[in-house]
Amino acid sequence: MTTASAELAARIRKSFQRQTMMQSLGAEITGISPGSVTLRAPLSPAFAQQQGHGHAAVTFALGDSAAGYSALSMMAPDHEVVTAEIKINLLSPASGEALIATGHVIKPGRRLFVVRADVHAEANGSLRPVAVLMGTMVPVDA
Amino acid sequence: MTTASAELAARIRKSFQRQTMMQSLGAEITGISPGSVTLRAPLSPAFAQQQGHGHAAVTFALGDSAAGYSALSMMAPDHEVVTAEIKINLLSPASGEALIATGHVIKPGRRLFVVRADVHAEANGSLRPVAVLMGTMVPVDA
Amino acid sequence: MTTASAELAARIRKSFQRQTMMQSLGAEITGISPGSVTLRAPLSPAFAQQQGHGHAAVTFALGDSAAGYSALSMMAPDHEVVTAEIKINLLSPASGEALIATGHVIKPGRRLFVVRADVHAEANGSLRPVAVLMGTMVPVDA
Amino acid sequence: MTTASAELAARIRKSFQRQTMMQSLGAEITGISPGSVTLRAPLSPAFAQQQGHGHAAVTFALGDSAAGYSALSMMAPDHEVVTAEIKINLLSPASGEALIATGHVIKPGRRLFVVRADVHAEANGSLRPVAVLMGTMVPVDA
Repeated sequence: MTTASAELAARIRKSFQRQTMMQSLGAEITGISPGSVTLRAPLSPAFAQQQGHGHAAVTFALGDSAAGYSALSMMAPDHEVVTAEIKINLLSPASGEALIATGHVIKPGRRLFVVRADVHAEANGSLRPVAVLMGTMVPVDA
Repeated sequence: MTTASAELAARIRKSFQRQTMMQSLGAEITGISPGSVTLRAPLSPAFAQQQGHGHAAVTFALGDSAAGYSALSMMAPDHEVVTAEIKINLLSPASGEALIATGHVIKPGRRLFVVRADVHAEANGSLRPVAVLMGTMVPVDA
Repeated sequence: MTTASAELAARIRKSFQRQTMMQSLGAEITGISPGSVTLRAPLSPAFAQQQGHGHAAVTFALGDSAAGYSALSMMAPDHEVVTAEIKINLLSPASGEALIATGHVIKPGRRLFVVRADVHAEANGSLRPVAVLMGTMVPVDA
Repeated sequence: MTTASAELAARIRKSFQRQTMMQSLGAEITGISPGSVTLRAPLSPAFAQQQGHGHAAVTFALGDSAAGYSALSMMAPDHEVVTAEIKINLLSPASGEALIATGHVIKPGRRLFVVRADVHAEANGSLRPVAVLMGTMVPVDA
């Protein structure tokens, strides 16, 4: 790992640790590269919808944060990121052991970043697509 | 309250109580009428983003569930509702004492319901718009 | 009409006349007030989808421009407006004599405007909802 | 080309030719495979926005139709397709000689298809990303 990416990883981990929502979900960062961040969280019975699957808000939380940190990974060190808007299309129930969300920057910009995230459910060692998100992130002064 | 609306309220409350996500957020139903449901949850330090405001996923959770139950309030009793897609535009930080989300059915349908939700933050007795959501709900057999 | 609103109307009409898409659709501005602009266009057999109804792009064109000019109506005179993103939920076929789109500013801002638009079809003197749009507009230097 | 794909191509071309919007834009089908359709249209001064670039509705028209025909390419022959909702994120101005839109099926389904489309501008022989779309298509009886 180069010094540059160590700095980047430290910056993203620092912001991530301040997101108590991520701690409450038991989420962890499993991948960081410029323009892409991956998060993983176990599916918990405490955050279910009425059929016992993960609530769409859990899928949203991971997808939104993965997309946001993907944008942050391409911003200057003195910036933070906030979500302007994001849309989620749900593909299948959030069931299994865990959710894995990978964000990607579609288009960086001075004022706006267009991002997407893909969320999969991990069950018995295989991955199944659960949702896709597409949104707009805004760089703000830290 | 008429018998019809008592039946409706009971049906929505029963589904709501199965959503452990709503219990974990401390959410409650504060209004039910045909085509519109209102939810309220205190803002908790356990579900914050990196700046200490409520994570977008909390705003999303309440807006999505309020919109979904608004759709359910116009479905036959033997149906459940699932979200196909929903988009959230964030207007201001989720800060204050509580979030209040009101869902509305824009267009009911046999196969699809188009819905929206408005989410406000309650702070010092006044309300401030936090987000708007617009999405598609699908009726499924219970 | 006050001087201020005459200036505003002139500014919006000037931009509108440069939108050759609006001329090709036969669209006209039928209402301008601060934060809301209404457009109207006849439904033409030249812009249909495969079933003979208006193509979703016609509904989108009117909704997007109505929403954009609603935002422009709240910007300083030296600004133009561009669409960052917009979502359309289609409610019923675009059939009848004309489409009428009314835009509204949900939240103005220095960097982003959140907007919506409601599109109706006019048929035999009555109006039917055809689509709702929600999006983000960006002020840029003219 | 197998018989099956000749049948598929014929079915998509037949529907496409009924879309007078596509004819008015000068659009043509440049690629058909199961789950993906590509459309191309010259950028015309008749369909511009106020700065002279292609109006977002042109980009939308191509992206929406490419996504819709991608879904149709995976449906049984007695079905047609209608758009339930679609969101467009605009990445750069629609300028150059032509727009090229490629649709993809993200998730087929009995009641709903989740789709996306990527739109590029062709200028001086190179391609530049102009927009991404993500939406929901509904199969209906032809």
